[in-house]
Amino acid sequence: MTSLRSVAQESETVGAAMRAVGAAARAAARALANAPRAQKDRALTQAAAALRARAGEILAANARDLAAAKARGLAAAFLDRLTLDGTRIEAMARGLEEIAALPDPVGRVLARFERPNGLLIERVATPLGVVGVIYESRPNVTADAGALCLKSGNAAVLRGGSDSFHSSAAIHACLVEGLRGAGLPEAAISAAPSASREAVAEMLAGLGGALDVIVPRGGRSLVERVQKEARVPVFAHLEGVVHVYVDRAADLDKATKVLVNAKLRRTGVCGAAEKLLVDKACAATHLKPLVQALLDRGCAVRGDGAAMAADPRVTKASEEDWRAEYLDAIIAAKVVDGLDAAIAQIETYGSHHTDCIVTEDREAAEKFLKEVDSAIVLHNASTQFADGGEFGFGGEIGIATGRMHARGPVGLEQLCTFKYKVRGDGQVRP
Amino acid sequence: MTSLRSVAQESETVGAAMRAVGAAARAAARALANAPRAQKDRALTQAAAALRARAGEILAANARDLAAAKARGLAAAFLDRLTLDGTRIEAMARGLEEIAALPDPVGRVLARFERPNGLLIERVATPLGVVGVIYESRPNVTADAGALCLKSGNAAVLRGGSDSFHSSAAIHACLVEGLRGAGLPEAAISAAPSASREAVAEMLAGLGGALDVIVPRGGRSLVERVQKEARVPVFAHLEGVVHVYVDRAADLDKATKVLVNAKLRRTGVCGAAEKLLVDKACAATHLKPLVQALLDRGCAVRGDGAAMAADPRVTKASEEDWRAEYLDAIIAAKVVDGLDAAIAQIETYGSHHTDCIVTEDREAAEKFLKEVDSAIVLHNASTQFADGGEFGFGGEIGIATGRMHARGPVGLEQLCTFKYKVRGDGQVRP
Repeated sequence: MTSLRSVAQESETVGAAMRAVGAAARAAARALANAPRAQKDRALTQAAAALRARAGEILAANARDLAAAKARGLAAAFLDRLTLDGTRIEAMARGLEEIAALPDPVGRVLARFERPNGLLIERVATPLGVVGVIYESRPNVTADAGALCLKSGNAAVLRGGSDSFHSSAAIHACLVEGLRGAGLPEAAISAAPSASREAVAEMLAGLGGALDVIVPRGGRSLVERVQKEARVPVFAHLEGVVHVYVDRAADLDKATKVLVNAKLRRTGVCGAAEKLLVDKACAATHLKPLVQALLDRGCAVRGDGAAMAADPRVTKASEEDWRAEYLDAIIAAKVVDGLDAAIAQIETYGSHHTDCIVTEDREAAEKFLKEVDSAIVLHNASTQFADGGEFGFGGEIGIATGRMHARGPVGLEQLCTFKYKVRGDGQVRP
Repeated sequence: MTSLRSVAQESETVGAAMRAVGAAARAAARALANAPRAQKDRALTQAAAALRARAGEILAANARDLAAAKARGLAAAFLDRLTLDGTRIEAMARGLEEIAALPDPVGRVLARFERPNGLLIERVATPLGVVGVIYESRPNVTADAGALCLKSGNAAVLRGGSDSFHSSAAIHACLVEGLRGAGLPEAAISAAPSASREAVAEMLAGLGGALDVIVPRGGRSLVERVQKEARVPVFAHLEGVVHVYVDRAADLDKATKVLVNAKLRRTGVCGAAEKLLVDKACAATHLKPLVQALLDRGCAVRGDGAAMAADPRVTKASEEDWRAEYLDAIIAAKVVDGLDAAIAQIETYGSHHTDCIVTEDREAAEKFLKEVDSAIVLHNASTQFADGGEFGFGGEIGIATGRMHARGPVGLEQLCTFKYKVRGDGQVRP
């Protein structure tokens, strides 16, 4: 009984603390929405300076997190994501300065029209409000996500993973120093006072109406939980089941170069290719060299009968292979009967994230770009360009496969909503 | 027991039928997304022709609904919304033709940028997918909402009120005739096979993943239920607590004209003014004539001490009056201490729908337009312009006060999402 009661009490305390953070962030959001560009940029550059000046403290905090993580026996990949060093801190600081240098997304005039009655109507970008970010072990998300929210005039509530708690707190202190230096409310970038699961549950419930949107940054189970349980909108993608379709009119060299890069440049990113579709009309010439290019670089290939016939190293693909996101040096390859069959395969088995056609036939390319219903569709380019930085957005807070508001890389522009400003001279409606 | 079982069975049958409708609409959505403009427009103009040709059938169906509604003793305002006649049918038909004449919102290039590596990136408008519309007694919503969804390449699932069931079904038959004539799938505009509450519950649950968004059209209790229970995004506004702020630099004649129109042109619309705020600095000259202009036209005024002192007909406002949406010839009026106090009052008591400043001071106007966080902010114009038609959108499916995706009047453009088309020539990522 006692222990149950204390758990309930603790959870109530976390809940109250989280809702207080939400209310403070909501109040800060209004000041931030009206802050001029120079003030926001000053906060960012002063935060960058603080990151450099306090690198020692940050590394000491990171050492505490790392020691605890090692003691818990966490995997090497996890430890790598958690580890900070001078280079990574400098990269964070430069990231803040780069975001400061970007144009202000707030106040952009998105559309302007004059009505016959003389009313001048403008659709103008405004901040979304308060953005909740739930992330796992990467402490640098604290700086990246906080800076993108600040620049777009949004308050942020950041909840980092418990394993990176001290590192994130040290980085967060630098962001707060920047806000203070610029005369902006410190709650504009708030950190959850607890890394507990209750803190996450409170955020998913919306912090008493304070959160406008939640962005989960992390593995599949985190994203799945957020998508399932959140009572506020979510910008996220669950997986990237990314296809490369090599059309009958594909240039083989180009196809090979694009495919190898799309699959193997980095295998753990959401834009990494997971499926190879080869047009039946060019399978005789293209399938074998494409499959072998991957095999020779250490990529496992699971295939249909044609792919298996192309090279003895190809193993038989199961039905699940056509839906799988490996995030590893594995690909599933098959022959399809032309462009329509390729599109049908992608629509049936894909995840509407990123898909690519390789072809010299412009008409086929345009049909693919139009009919494949994915956030990003590419013609003759590696799917690993699916990234806000590569799109020129100066960073991204995530990639979304939802259809509402944001889709694809979510940068500063998609962290804004809009309002209509209507200017008249006494017009009334008849 | 038997009766409970049969209720459960019926609810299961409705559920299965609704999910089947959802699946068919989802399949139709893909065909519609790729349909060329001419085909969509042909469906709309043929549906308009069918409305005219089948006006007799529609009026007969409407007579059935009206007889039942009268027998149930429904109010006169309700019966008026439900009633169709030749003029209203012709207006529906012309509405379809006007939507056909609008530019196609699908395929618009929203942004285009070339990257240093030569990649050409376009953000292109695409349909949202499947739009669910839940409405009450107005049968014309069937035609309006169906047409807006069709033009924007979205499939629609329409669930009209049970009181307008036969009227809506007769109108829906005309839309289906148009779709058939244009060679588009009939499920592109689907009607719920039942007007039961179970049908609504199924739609709020998303029809097994088939619905991308729900638009409620009707009274407060409907919108409240949809906002509370829907598991998919909602485009809606709960209420319009609309303010007119008369600034110290307001022209009195202009202010009177705008205020009277904003309050009294139609009192039952969401853009009707519900609050009058008068700047203390001009209250001595402006408050009395403004209040009397309303009183003399039959509008009740509830006010603070200053407003009560202006005219004996003004009654005392309670705290609830500052938050109330009357939708009637009633207004709450008070004096505020300048622009900042007006903005604070609106942010505290308003509903972020539509608010207006009357002033000749351009700087004050710009501050108001920037800092009032409402979907529509106006300067020197009646708040009753809060309407998609008045914005030139060629109709609206509703007005949204949410911050995600759509805000303000929701027309064809906001019924679209976007994708990124990336065109390269073999680019890979280093």
